[in-house]
Amino acid sequence: MPISDDTYKIIFDEIDARQDEFVKVLKEAVAIASVSSDPERRSDCVKMVMWTKKKLESVGATVQIIENGKQKLQNGKTIDLPPILFGVLGNDPKKKTVLVYGHLDVQPAAKEDGWNTNPFELTEVDGKLFGRGSTDDKGPVVAWVHAISVLQKKKVPIPVNLKFVFECMEESGSEGLEQALRNHKDTFLKDVDMTCISDNYWLGKNKPCLTYGLRGICYYFVEIGCAKQDLHSGTYGGSIPEAMNDLIWVLSQLTEKDGTIKIPHIYDIVAPVTDDEKKMYEGIDFCMDEYKKDIEAHGLLKPTKEEILMNRWRYPSLSIHGIEGAFSNSGAKTVIGKFSLRIVPNMTPEAVDKLVIDHLNNLWKQRGSPNHFKPIAYHSGSAWLADYKDDNFRAGARAMKRVFGVEPDYTREGGSIPITLAFQDLTGRSVMLLPIGACDDMAHSQNEKLDRSNYIKGTKTLAAYLLELAE
Amino acid sequence: MPISDDTYKIIFDEIDARQDEFVKVLKEAVAIASVSSDPERRSDCVKMVMWTKKKLESVGATVQIIENGKQKLQNGKTIDLPPILFGVLGNDPKKKTVLVYGHLDVQPAAKEDGWNTNPFELTEVDGKLFGRGSTDDKGPVVAWVHAISVLQKKKVPIPVNLKFVFECMEESGSEGLEQALRNHKDTFLKDVDMTCISDNYWLGKNKPCLTYGLRGICYYFVEIGCAKQDLHSGTYGGSIPEAMNDLIWVLSQLTEKDGTIKIPHIYDIVAPVTDDEKKMYEGIDFCMDEYKKDIEAHGLLKPTKEEILMNRWRYPSLSIHGIEGAFSNSGAKTVIGKFSLRIVPNMTPEAVDKLVIDHLNNLWKQRGSPNHFKPIAYHSGSAWLADYKDDNFRAGARAMKRVFGVEPDYTREGGSIPITLAFQDLTGRSVMLLPIGACDDMAHSQNEKLDRSNYIKGTKTLAAYLLELAE
Repeated sequence: MPISDDTYKIIFDEIDARQDEFVKVLKEAVAIASVSSDPERRSDCVKMVMWTKKKLESVGATVQIIENGKQKLQNGKTIDLPPILFGVLGNDPKKKTVLVYGHLDVQPAAKEDGWNTNPFELTEVDGKLFGRGSTDDKGPVVAWVHAISVLQKKKVPIPVNLKFVFECMEESGSEGLEQALRNHKDTFLKDVDMTCISDNYWLGKNKPCLTYGLRGICYYFVEIGCAKQDLHSGTYGGSIPEAMNDLIWVLSQLTEKDGTIKIPHIYDIVAPVTDDEKKMYEGIDFCMDEYKKDIEAHGLLKPTKEEILMNRWRYPSLSIHGIEGAFSNSGAKTVIGKFSLRIVPNMTPEAVDKLVIDHLNNLWKQRGSPNHFKPIAYHSGSAWLADYKDDNFRAGARAMKRVFGVEPDYTREGGSIPITLAFQDLTGRSVMLLPIGACDDMAHSQNEKLDRSNYIKGTKTLAAYLLELAE
Repeated sequence: MPISDDTYKIIFDEIDARQDEFVKVLKEAVAIASVSSDPERRSDCVKMVMWTKKKLESVGATVQIIENGKQKLQNGKTIDLPPILFGVLGNDPKKKTVLVYGHLDVQPAAKEDGWNTNPFELTEVDGKLFGRGSTDDKGPVVAWVHAISVLQKKKVPIPVNLKFVFECMEESGSEGLEQALRNHKDTFLKDVDMTCISDNYWLGKNKPCLTYGLRGICYYFVEIGCAKQDLHSGTYGGSIPEAMNDLIWVLSQLTEKDGTIKIPHIYDIVAPVTDDEKKMYEGIDFCMDEYKKDIEAHGLLKPTKEEILMNRWRYPSLSIHGIEGAFSNSGAKTVIGKFSLRIVPNMTPEAVDKLVIDHLNNLWKQRGSPNHFKPIAYHSGSAWLADYKDDNFRAGARAMKRVFGVEPDYTREGGSIPITLAFQDLTGRSVMLLPIGACDDMAHSQNEKLDRSNYIKGTKTLAAYLLELAE
């Protein structure tokens, strides 16, 4: 039974009316300096977890504290990892269950790094809420609590059961989370019908989007050795085939000038672009000039918006990262070149590894060098792709349309967020990335902010998303 | 008036008779741990300088201590550099003047590094004198003192005036030496007719040689920038032309697989090989297999002895040293490739710089990348070449023939010894490298040694060299 427009209006008006209160709650959260990479801040991380537990309990959730074991520090000491929160709100077997993920930890920040305000004191300037964690990811986490609290206050029944997974180690590789989830695959995760994650950003500054894909990665080493010791380039230069020259040649045979990957058949295993997809890319709100200007790039690899976005999101790319074992004055005996491919559907790491290693071996045969050659497939992670037309995404899109008055863009991202794939694998159901912040929120940087309007509209979007899930 | 064969016999017999005494003196020298790179050992360096001063005075030389100013350490402190010794023995205006250079400092050494014996206690095993500095360069320095002392004891007049320059910072870049020599260009150095330096090694283990050439060096940076910040390869890979890909391509355009340098006209400025030279290379005692085996190289760039030696000594070579500014996970905004050319006569650094920079600029034009490109000629040093048929070399060759019964090989080296060129420039006269140690003496390595037989034959060679200079 769909929810009436009046109900939406009541909810949205209530959110507008309480926005100062919501900003105050975010201020409380930002004030807890839960920097997960700093062992000195571990007690703040625990404090943040407990603060969030109370907030969830205040809207009636049952919250379980999942102890997360020990962390081994670089100095050899071990300390407790912050616990993970598993929350449950509602268990009506007739309702679908939505899992919400968010993280409570933040990147380090200090005024001296170039912040205009104290990073741990949420400060509003011209409608922007500056503070560490404002957009990544405390704003979205508390927005969930506000959305639920408003629905409850206005006595609008939530049409789904809710589960929450909130961790406090995301900025430090989500240590322990995947194992904890795996341990609860057949219990806590068993009845999850869909997952919603608000931990990424809009493509631009003005138009909301839903994110349905992430690239994976395959990382390679190429090791070439020419002698038992480093050879002085004066004494030996000209007499032996130097490992570095071989390596530079091999690395030069991986991409064309325009970035096209020269590994045979690599594009054969990329999912073909559909007409539907093409049309979708045409509609995406993305300004090439602004993109170029923001990073002060001297040029872009492709002339059109569609090609640039496809190159970032739905085509593989190859980057050479560097060379290990080189010195400023000697010919190194062994040099190691490092490169990676960002992979996309339908590329599997296994198929990519085979094509890459075959290509490297063929190049080496072609080179005909007497040196020792060892190509290594170092590590890999799969790409993630969701069906952006499923119920989960449709509810997200309708919610955005209600709040922003426009259909969202459907975006992907070029990097990896491994936990997304973990949720999809462990629940076997739809995962959607629903960003609340804008591309200029400066997550991880100085002067991180969340626009007040996006915070409030984000809260409305989350409430509307829940209502749109009504059968 | 040439010296009679009998005189040579008397001198050689005396050296043989006193060899145990000479080994004892070398043992004294090795016991002083004059490691110039270790500020804690600076007093040992000064002690070694003073010990040598006494030895020179014991054969009648007048020795001047040249204070060498201060050394600035990496920790910001300054300490005194060890003084330099300028010695004079004889000032007969009718005689030629020979300058002898040697160094009194040594590389670091510790038993734990893998020495079989205490590195600072000269230890004889199977006719090999193991100890730090035995061959580099204390053995040759004390051999000079012994040679003179024997001539004096046997009342054989030395047919030349002698000057000595002994420093104690050679293993640390000869800090201060060139300036000290420059300061004495018109005084102490004014009447020098030839220089003899015993601070390198035979090409092999069995046949003596005289060294008449060293390659120079031209060192380059190639800087390529693509953005204002490091760009995550996931987020940006595929959208912008990465600096690293451009750099790898540029570096791949510098040499052929067989090491041939691809810089246009670079070989046009190399002195052509003369017939005389060709013949000389054919006669050189050099075993390719042994060379390859010693460094455990997997292959050599050329199939014949003559080509390998010419490639090491009298042709330029190009080595790529590495890439700065690369990270394991990001696309670096700016990367710097480093490479160098070892240069030979008639290449001047100026001419090489022009050809290299022109080539780099042409490559960049060909690449057509929008990125920022900056080729930099970083530093250079000229090649050194002597006339191995001049009086100095002829005397050295005759001396070797007398001691070893064979004509020496005439060799060059692939690296640079800048002080050689400085002596040639400041005196304007012949400089000869007369090595005493063999190629397997392990200078700079663990278990450095000087064969007792080479130490004694070297002493004879130096005495004979002085006698062969009689007009």
